[in-house]
Amino acid sequence: MGGELHESKLVLHTIFRITAALLAALAGGDLAIAGTDISHFALANGLEVVVIPDHRVPVATHMIWYKVGSADETPGKSGLAHFLEHLMFKGTAKNPLDRFSQIVATIGGQENAFTSSDYTGYFQRVPKNELKHMMELEADRMTGLVLTDDVVRPELDVVLEEQNMRVANNPAARLGEQMEAALYLNHPYGRPVIGWRQEIEQLTREDALAFYRRFYTPNNAVVVVTGDVTVDEVRTFAEQTYGQVGPVTEIKSRVRPQEPVQEAARTVTLADARVAQPSVSRYYLVPSSTTAQAGESEALELLAHILGRGSNSRLYRSLVVNDAIAVNAGANYDSTALDATRLSVYATPKPGISLAQLEQALDDVLADVIARGVTAEELDRSKSRMVADAIYANDNPRTMAQWYGAALTTGSTVEQVRAWPERIRAVSADAVRDAARHWLDKRRSVTGYLIKDSQPQEKRS
Amino acid sequence: MGGELHESKLVLHTIFRITAALLAALAGGDLAIAGTDISHFALANGLEVVVIPDHRVPVATHMIWYKVGSADETPGKSGLAHFLEHLMFKGTAKNPLDRFSQIVATIGGQENAFTSSDYTGYFQRVPKNELKHMMELEADRMTGLVLTDDVVRPELDVVLEEQNMRVANNPAARLGEQMEAALYLNHPYGRPVIGWRQEIEQLTREDALAFYRRFYTPNNAVVVVTGDVTVDEVRTFAEQTYGQVGPVTEIKSRVRPQEPVQEAARTVTLADARVAQPSVSRYYLVPSSTTAQAGESEALELLAHILGRGSNSRLYRSLVVNDAIAVNAGANYDSTALDATRLSVYATPKPGISLAQLEQALDDVLADVIARGVTAEELDRSKSRMVADAIYANDNPRTMAQWYGAALTTGSTVEQVRAWPERIRAVSADAVRDAARHWLDKRRSVTGYLIKDSQPQEKRS
Repeated sequence: MGGELHESKLVLHTIFRITAALLAALAGGDLAIAGTDISHFALANGLEVVVIPDHRVPVATHMIWYKVGSADETPGKSGLAHFLEHLMFKGTAKNPLDRFSQIVATIGGQENAFTSSDYTGYFQRVPKNELKHMMELEADRMTGLVLTDDVVRPELDVVLEEQNMRVANNPAARLGEQMEAALYLNHPYGRPVIGWRQEIEQLTREDALAFYRRFYTPNNAVVVVTGDVTVDEVRTFAEQTYGQVGPVTEIKSRVRPQEPVQEAARTVTLADARVAQPSVSRYYLVPSSTTAQAGESEALELLAHILGRGSNSRLYRSLVVNDAIAVNAGANYDSTALDATRLSVYATPKPGISLAQLEQALDDVLADVIARGVTAEELDRSKSRMVADAIYANDNPRTMAQWYGAALTTGSTVEQVRAWPERIRAVSADAVRDAARHWLDKRRSVTGYLIKDSQPQEKRS
Repeated sequence: MGGELHESKLVLHTIFRITAALLAALAGGDLAIAGTDISHFALANGLEVVVIPDHRVPVATHMIWYKVGSADETPGKSGLAHFLEHLMFKGTAKNPLDRFSQIVATIGGQENAFTSSDYTGYFQRVPKNELKHMMELEADRMTGLVLTDDVVRPELDVVLEEQNMRVANNPAARLGEQMEAALYLNHPYGRPVIGWRQEIEQLTREDALAFYRRFYTPNNAVVVVTGDVTVDEVRTFAEQTYGQVGPVTEIKSRVRPQEPVQEAARTVTLADARVAQPSVSRYYLVPSSTTAQAGESEALELLAHILGRGSNSRLYRSLVVNDAIAVNAGANYDSTALDATRLSVYATPKPGISLAQLEQALDDVLADVIARGVTAEELDRSKSRMVADAIYANDNPRTMAQWYGAALTTGSTVEQVRAWPERIRAVSADAVRDAARHWLDKRRSVTGYLIKDSQPQEKRS
């Protein structure tokens, strides 16, 4: 419940989704949470550093975020940002082969990496006395990557197998990909993060190196350190490691092709024999926290929460509890994006219920919120829940690092993240109703139908 | 009847569409048509020249085709190929301002220009003794264009007004744009030739000049001359004019992002108060004559003709004549394209007939041809009609020039155009049925609904 139905905007390896509630603030005056003394500074070479001390456990979480994702790829080279993420583990002159990962394993650390439309990130959780070591290793591979065809070609097979598992063999994921492609008429968010298969197959070592040299540079990265550290030691380590990285490549502003006026409702139907559970879902094109006017993104967060977060939400109560026509229903809003994003609603029918009937019931719920808005009680409950979720989530240093990393690589500031609880609390019921009226507009939407195909699969060319 | 319902793939100014029947051959041994002695040669600088003598009238038709169209634009700069086409009339150092057009008018000539996804062309029809003069003028503006903000800015307003007239105020054209965007998940054919309005608005003099310098070069152009000329004189003139053009820019191969496997049927619904006549239409993604396997494109041409060309076609007979539920119905296949193209079917309901009912009847016609194929009689009739149309069309020197220009700028050869009647005649009924079975696959299709919106238009952001 509350999870995403489709995963076409994959954040890979560790699939974590920056949901509305996650993008919470730290350190509101009334929030008794760890890490209230966030520091944010830049090195001379342009690298941004965020430090969030949390001394409860002698562990440090170290993340480096590059401001590059699949939406920054050259058309025809989809999947390149993600492929490079894989190749970043293939060694440098100083630390060849998989020495980086061996070191992390030897010291009992954890590591991971992820790619989205807007950013690519690398993560280690290690004993605090190994932090500088991690920074050395990341600084080394920021510009020192060595790629040979011997490592690139087998890794391409790994990525293709990943696409196979995550998408090709997953009808819901394939529908999600096709819905994203239909939602974005012009913007590169329409292409999957993992890439279109026929383009992944053609990616080369040269493609990866060119992309790496263009985007992996100190002035295009954000380091986030949380845990049992002090700002001074992080600053010193950062200067001793990342501060030595050169050369600095000039980075152009991230201007992507934008959407034309959307004025025609779309549908996408995917029928597959492997569909065990049919579903209906809809994506609306809406502003992100970066593109929205003041207060608008926060109103959309509350709208999505009231509509579809948890068993108290309108969609769940109406379709699952009252009408008993759905086994699940909900809504999501991806606020964290550099450009226009999506608000999604979805429902999964009980056996014997048609998707048409379910969609009508879903539309009735939306029509009601458009017509009559939300109640003061709903609004207060959702605000409290969202802020509380954020406070609980703050207990996890990694989650903290994720909030800041995602925010700073998608056009938000530390101050905006900090002020998030205040911004949520300031949303009025009228603002939520207005957001519903303006943005739940079918002309800017794609409705997806996932259905079980009882006919034999035709051979496809 | 037989015309295109939607015009999103605009060929601008002169809207001519290279339809199946138009892409006919010359000079089959059994075709008694003018211009059987076609010559095709290249100058030292790479410019291709096609000469088609026709001495019936003392007139020459001169066309220059550049192998660049909207699908070659940089993402975010849609409309640039077409904008540059406009700007090409703004003068050079040698022939400033609109001297070119004044000369054409003074000598009693006609001129025009057009842009498509794959090519941009310029055309003059003049007294034969003015041919060399036209070649001088075109050669001069191939690399000598002078653009100042004084001429660029007002012309941008002209183009925006053109977009306004052709698209923004035309619900059918807007639906066509949105259907193309939904048909192509990845390929740049998904963007309109005229461009997305918000991107046209941002085009600059610098954009136009950069595009011009990149693509307007002798080795990226095809000159086609038809009319009262000899090959020798055209060759001499071409060497004296185009042969002097430098410098020659290196041209990269035209590799565009291709489509992923298409496996989800899509719909697009456009409701507008100004819709006087609702309609249903469907685009199928199919191979072009350039991308098809041997015989496949020809089979699709016959399929489209049998399904939907003229009042004897299956769709027309079934929906308009027999069922009397449509005022019009037909099919089209755009075979001339560098990459995957579309086969479209459409129907316009009689008053009181729902689009759902009409679509069902349309689908029944398609299902029948998929299940049972076409008859020998239908096949013969369509072949005869297509070849005859081509012969009649050959009487028009301009049409001849268009066939060759479009073919040579989309990956076909002179020989392929010449052999077209033989290729059409060789298509079997089985091949047409197989083409229907394989390519009339809804998973690779977009269905569009144009409906009258009786509700007041909401304000759009």
